[in-house]
Amino acid sequence: MPRFKLTIEYDGRPYVGWQRQTTGPTVQECLEQSVFAFSGERVEVAGAGRTDKGVHATGQVAHIELASEKFDARTVMNAINALIRPEPIAVVAAEVASDDFHARFSAIERRYRYEILNRRAPPALDLGRVWHVATALDEDAMHSAAQRLVGHHDFTSFRATQCQSASPEKTLDQLDIARDGERIVAIARSRSFLHHQVRNMVGTLKLVGEGKWTADDVTAALDARARAAAGPTAPADGLYLTDVIYPES
Amino acid sequence: MPRFKLTIEYDGRPYVGWQRQTTGPTVQECLEQSVFAFSGERVEVAGAGRTDKGVHATGQVAHIELASEKFDARTVMNAINALIRPEPIAVVAAEVASDDFHARFSAIERRYRYEILNRRAPPALDLGRVWHVATALDEDAMHSAAQRLVGHHDFTSFRATQCQSASPEKTLDQLDIARDGERIVAIARSRSFLHHQVRNMVGTLKLVGEGKWTADDVTAALDARARAAAGPTAPADGLYLTDVIYPES
Repeated sequence: MPRFKLTIEYDGRPYVGWQRQTTGPTVQECLEQSVFAFSGERVEVAGAGRTDKGVHATGQVAHIELASEKFDARTVMNAINALIRPEPIAVVAAEVASDDFHARFSAIERRYRYEILNRRAPPALDLGRVWHVATALDEDAMHSAAQRLVGHHDFTSFRATQCQSASPEKTLDQLDIARDGERIVAIARSRSFLHHQVRNMVGTLKLVGEGKWTADDVTAALDARARAAAGPTAPADGLYLTDVIYPES
Repeated sequence: MPRFKLTIEYDGRPYVGWQRQTTGPTVQECLEQSVFAFSGERVEVAGAGRTDKGVHATGQVAHIELASEKFDARTVMNAINALIRPEPIAVVAAEVASDDFHARFSAIERRYRYEILNRRAPPALDLGRVWHVATALDEDAMHSAAQRLVGHHDFTSFRATQCQSASPEKTLDQLDIARDGERIVAIARSRSFLHHQVRNMVGTLKLVGEGKWTADDVTAALDARARAAAGPTAPADGLYLTDVIYPES
C-alpha cells in the first residue's frame, strides 16, 4: 500500500490542536476528511508533533497510507489542498515514503520558532500569531540565560503538569534568541520536546528579558525540578512547528 | 489646538478600505470612533493614502487635531489602541505635529510592498495577505521589465478607469522585484500613485514572470496609454502601504 510523507502548514487559531478530539475542530480531522473526500478511504493522518490549541506550523510532517495504488504524491497534495478549503491548512510538499516511515517515530529532530512582538503597540496584522510584550526586553540577556537550558537535563520545571511523557529528561540541542527589529525570535531544536516545554522556557526567559530574573535564576529553576519554580507558560500565539528532521533514507 | 501625527498598522481584510463610506466598515471610521471614545471629540482622522478594500498597511500615516489640550501623544496612542480592540488596527507611533502638518498634503513619498506567494500549495498562514501564484515566476525577468516603468510617464495604462486623479502623469522612483524563498516581493516608491497603479503594474509584471510577456510588451503597454493594453489588476491581498515620507521639519 502506498505511503506518503506530507509537509503541512497551518494557522492554529481555529483549532483545539493537531490531534483529533471531541472538544472542537482539529487539524488532523480536517486533513482526514479531505483524504476521505478524494480517496473514499478512512485513514489516519499521523503527525510528527501534537501541537496544542492555537499553535501554528510551517513544517508539520504527517504520513498516510492508502489502499488504492492510483494516486501519485502530487495528486494527493493537490487534492487535499483543493478539498480542505476554506480551512487555513495546506500541504506544502508530498512525497512517496518507504513502508517503514513513520512521521512521529522516525523523526530524529523537531524545530520550533517562537515569535514575540516587542513594542508598545499591540499587533494588528499579526494578531494571534505573536506574543505581544509591551515592555522592552533585553534579547542578549535572554539568549545568554537560554544557554543554561541547552544540553541534557531533567526538564520537570518546564513541562506541563499534565505531560504524559515517561521521562522528564531531554536533550535540548539549541535555544537561540535574537532580535529582528520589533520581533524577538527564539529557535529551539531537540529530538523531542515535553508538553509546553518551549512555551514554558520562553515564558521564563521573558522574565530575564524584563530584568526580573538572572541567568542564575534560570539555572535554579531548572535544578528545582518543579513546575512552580519556573516562569509562566507563554501563549500559544507565537509558537510555530517549523521542521521535523528524518535520517537520510 | 494640538495636532498629532499617527503611524498606523492594519489588516485590510475586514474593511471596505481606508476611507469612510456607506458600503461597509472602514479603517478611518474605526479610528474616529476610538478617538471619540476617549476624547469626546468628533474629529476627522485624515490619512495619507486611501487604501482600497482588503489592502493592508504597516505604515499608514494620519493626523488628528483635538480641541482639548490635556492629551499627550503617548496617551493618544495608548487610548486608541485600548479602545479599538478587537479591530485589527493599531497605532504604532504617535507624535505632536506642527499646525501646518497634513498627513496627505505634506507627504513627499509613499512606499508600497507587494507580496506574491510563489509555490504550488495555497497559503494557509498568510491567507488573504499574499497573492498566491502557483506557476513558477522568473523574478529576474520581472525586475528587469519593471525598470521600463521607472521614471516620469503617463501611466494611463496602469490606472483604474474610475481613477479621479487630475493627471495620469506620475514619477515612479523605484520598482524593485526580488525573491525571498517562496515569496516574490515588489517595492514601489513614488510621490503619489494613481488608483490601482501598484496592483496593475504587479498584475502586468506577473505576465512577464510567466514568460507570456517580454519587457518590450511592458513598454508597449505603457506607450498605448489605455488601461486595456496592460495586464490584469493583482488582488488587494498582497498589497501593503509601508511608509509615508515627509520633509525633515
